[in-house]
Amino acid sequence: MALTHTRPGDPVDVQPMGSRLATEPTKALFKSDQLELIRLVLQAGKSFPPHQVLGEITIHCIEGEIDVTVDGESHILKAGQLLFLKGGTQHGVTALQDASALVTIVLKP
Amino acid sequence: MALTHTRPGDPVDVQPMGSRLATEPTKALFKSDQLELIRLVLQAGKSFPPHQVLGEITIHCIEGEIDVTVDGESHILKAGQLLFLKGGTQHGVTALQDASALVTIVLKP
Repeated sequence: MALTHTRPGDPVDVQPMGSRLATEPTKALFKSDQLELIRLVLQAGKSFPPHQVLGEITIHCIEGEIDVTVDGESHILKAGQLLFLKGGTQHGVTALQDASALVTIVLKP
Repeated sequence: MALTHTRPGDPVDVQPMGSRLATEPTKALFKSDQLELIRLVLQAGKSFPPHQVLGEITIHCIEGEIDVTVDGESHILKAGQLLFLKGGTQHGVTALQDASALVTIVLKP
């Protein structure tokens, strides 16, 4: 996931991908001192396996529908919904429909 | 800006407000250990005056169009675009159209 060289103040596109969902990869949007933003792309039925990060995160469903499994419990997010998780929380994501999401990660100092 | 008691994993609605833009106030969505999320609502021509916060932030335009002025320089965001700013950066927001935005703030430890 190569990082683009986004500068503070530069507009970053996080619009729905629509028909491009089928071909766009998951990619990192940028990483700064305190934040990393990732655009997660999953086709229906595909999963991002359970994992954890040190800092708090938000997962914002941009389009489609995803199931965020947190410590074995299912949390459904539709387009326009987000959730936050505390640092160190194990979570996985499964797309219930073709979906993309914006994942914001706080980088622990 | 009263805080709702959002728990980790709870879905939080950040969909476009549409016709409710005219009457909905700006409000805090939640505050956790490391993050604060605010839904900023501005009618066309209205501004949120220049200010700064300690931690890094992202400003994600959900609908409409906003002008984020950073150290005197204008950055236009349309719906589906975001920018990030380093901590301590003075910034103000003016709505060019009726607009709402999701502001994510890293709370400095």
